[in-house]
Amino acid sequence: MATALSRTEVYSLLSLSLACCGILANTLQGDGEPLIASIAFSGLAFSCCYALIRWLGSAFMRAGFKGKDLCKLRQTEIPETMGAVCAMVYLLIIVIFIPWPFYKDIVAATSGGGNRDVMRELEQVETGRLLHKFPHNKLASYLSATLSLHTIVLLGIGDDLFDIRWRHKVLIPAIAAIPMLIVYFVDFGVTQMVVPTPLRPYLGELFDLGWLYYVYMALLSIFSSNSINILAGINGIEVAQSLVIALLIVLNDALYLCFTPYPNPATDSHLFSLYLLLPFIGVSVALLMHNWYPAKVFVGDTYCYFAGMVFAVDGILGHFSKTLILLLLPQGFNFVYSAPQLFHIVPCPRHRLPHFNARTGLLECSRVEFKKPLARPIAESLKLLHRLRMLDVETDERGDVVSSSNFTIINLWLVWFGPMREDRLALGLLALQTALGLLGLFIRHRMALLVFTQDNW
Amino acid sequence: MATALSRTEVYSLLSLSLACCGILANTLQGDGEPLIASIAFSGLAFSCCYALIRWLGSAFMRAGFKGKDLCKLRQTEIPETMGAVCAMVYLLIIVIFIPWPFYKDIVAATSGGGNRDVMRELEQVETGRLLHKFPHNKLASYLSATLSLHTIVLLGIGDDLFDIRWRHKVLIPAIAAIPMLIVYFVDFGVTQMVVPTPLRPYLGELFDLGWLYYVYMALLSIFSSNSINILAGINGIEVAQSLVIALLIVLNDALYLCFTPYPNPATDSHLFSLYLLLPFIGVSVALLMHNWYPAKVFVGDTYCYFAGMVFAVDGILGHFSKTLILLLLPQGFNFVYSAPQLFHIVPCPRHRLPHFNARTGLLECSRVEFKKPLARPIAESLKLLHRLRMLDVETDERGDVVSSSNFTIINLWLVWFGPMREDRLALGLLALQTALGLLGLFIRHRMALLVFTQDNW
Repeated sequence: MATALSRTEVYSLLSLSLACCGILANTLQGDGEPLIASIAFSGLAFSCCYALIRWLGSAFMRAGFKGKDLCKLRQTEIPETMGAVCAMVYLLIIVIFIPWPFYKDIVAATSGGGNRDVMRELEQVETGRLLHKFPHNKLASYLSATLSLHTIVLLGIGDDLFDIRWRHKVLIPAIAAIPMLIVYFVDFGVTQMVVPTPLRPYLGELFDLGWLYYVYMALLSIFSSNSINILAGINGIEVAQSLVIALLIVLNDALYLCFTPYPNPATDSHLFSLYLLLPFIGVSVALLMHNWYPAKVFVGDTYCYFAGMVFAVDGILGHFSKTLILLLLPQGFNFVYSAPQLFHIVPCPRHRLPHFNARTGLLECSRVEFKKPLARPIAESLKLLHRLRMLDVETDERGDVVSSSNFTIINLWLVWFGPMREDRLALGLLALQTALGLLGLFIRHRMALLVFTQDNW
Repeated sequence: MATALSRTEVYSLLSLSLACCGILANTLQGDGEPLIASIAFSGLAFSCCYALIRWLGSAFMRAGFKGKDLCKLRQTEIPETMGAVCAMVYLLIIVIFIPWPFYKDIVAATSGGGNRDVMRELEQVETGRLLHKFPHNKLASYLSATLSLHTIVLLGIGDDLFDIRWRHKVLIPAIAAIPMLIVYFVDFGVTQMVVPTPLRPYLGELFDLGWLYYVYMALLSIFSSNSINILAGINGIEVAQSLVIALLIVLNDALYLCFTPYPNPATDSHLFSLYLLLPFIGVSVALLMHNWYPAKVFVGDTYCYFAGMVFAVDGILGHFSKTLILLLLPQGFNFVYSAPQLFHIVPCPRHRLPHFNARTGLLECSRVEFKKPLARPIAESLKLLHRLRMLDVETDERGDVVSSSNFTIINLWLVWFGPMREDRLALGLLALQTALGLLGLFIRHRMALLVFTQDNW
């Protein structure tokens, strides 16, 4: 990989950064307009991340963060764990962004801030709450979200350094969720759930989940981070799927903001969500441009954990965790589909990424050989899956299962559509993710009224 | 190093942890008593950190975090960067601690938290603010302090991994200070300084530093972190000096809390400071027990940055930054004394740690040879320092300076008191630090009234 930026790149990044700084300077006059500032910060995040990935690549390789791309003819070593760079830029940007949504209102709402001259502020309070400005308790939520993301990045880097065992890995997002859960406990403590209409005669309108709500939030973090981490292995898929999910959430937020009248409790939540996601999109696009086929850098587990945690934090504090689960359906399917191998019901090879055929240059589905005969019920289940076209099973003359395709959605795609080049495979999966996500959002907004009395929860 | 804990260690740590859990369970009844909870959490932090240092040592060495102890006869490799383990435990503990000081009052103060049932809480508000409970805006400060510490740990690990250049290193604490500064800006925005009495006719009672106050806070972070990082090189000195400083600040806080009547604006600040420092003392003691002569682990730059940032955050948000500077006087002296070598006025060798004499087993001051003759004024200054017993300079027959002891307080100590064993050297420096610190606190409280009208700022 070229470590220096080309002249075109330098000029493009510089002009983008300057434009963003100009926009930011403009937002300082008048109300601050945090949403516009957030877009400008996302542009800055993109530029910084793009440049840093190039500049730091060789330093990462020297420090041992490097790996070979197994799906290529020439397996040169490229930098690993570049998601950590992404995450660092993101974390810095969302902290620097704080004064835009929080400043003015804080001063007004805390009746004089720390020791500020109270009288001067009271005049501003009279004029009421400023558009797009958050009340003070949102700041604690925002900071706790940032803390959770910090924690997951630290633990993710630990994982990339030390190769933590699978059963410990799973718990990383749960530990990282602690700051968010604790501040949620201290700050809101709302653990009530809206009960779907058909169940209301039995449970009432609101059902208090109590401590189970905290378990639910921790589980959502675990699911979101690990499901993105499992759907990985080919160039660009980790970053691109995260981008698709982020864009779908942004679409959902934008729809809310456009179609609901302003003073609405949901507005704040969706703005909050946008402020966290826009810079994430900025850094992810920069990373994708280096990680897309043929990859010049790898993202590392750090990125997958980080991306999953951004979604979890966003979904929980933006109060749309059920929508988030809808958007993670392909990942959820991949997890359920992988479960027989993950839980060692069926043998699991060390790598399950597709097999690269050096002669054709195409990826083929990778297979697992069963050296010991499988137990009867398992063998029959595999054959059934084969008949349903959900697996490619090979049997010997006696009808015993001798091998099958590996249990990942990536291999399943290759079973369905035959060998293809790495980028076409990634594009196919992304198209599926997008289509299912759009369908999910459609269902969520059209059908929600069937089970709930109102949509805006 | 033994990676498993001995039976005695297991029982001691387990019984300490159980005792701490018992105390914590007790604090859940009644008012919560955050100070007692904080002490219990510090005990837990000690146990976790002690065990993790032992368990993770070999994993760190496998990941390449290892180094040789240059001041020993047998230079076996031992784990490096164990300060990162310390920092992780600390960061987790201070987040889990949040509900103790913040919970009840938050609910009362935010008029019903997020969407809580407002009526129920209002009854509690009537009974007034609970002892030791913080108002809501302290939570944002506390979280921003945690964020700054997270950032410095991330950047510190980056430094340990990538060996960042000196001129970039210096800026690490400034970047890490950003979350604290931004939340300070959003939350308090107090940038006024109390003017010493003799200057009041010219400046008034309060002087508004404006943005210079933020520069001051950033500089304090840079100074605090780097000065601890520079006074390093012999077993235990980094951790032990941090412990001495932490204990002196705790003493200062305890004096305030004992001798000022309760409803006092300074009480909250000093409690805040204690809550941040007690767990720091817990993890540092665990680290010191492994890092003291003969060291079984190294602490890494991560620890030095982290410790310095804990003090900076504590001093700034606890509003006793001037006292902190007093306590850092030996580090400040070491920095000024080192400056000629740091800024390359005099040649600086790669390592300036004392020279180990394998025959006697003692440390001697290390020397820098001047291959090129020094400029006249510099040579004369060195000779003057030699005459003042502040340096050991060697001259040839023509009177030209050919070598001198290295410019660190550690080497100066060896110049003054002759060769000695590594632990005696560390103890001597620590005694100096303690004595100067106590003197500083005495001066600060006895003399403050000479230049300020009241002591409690």
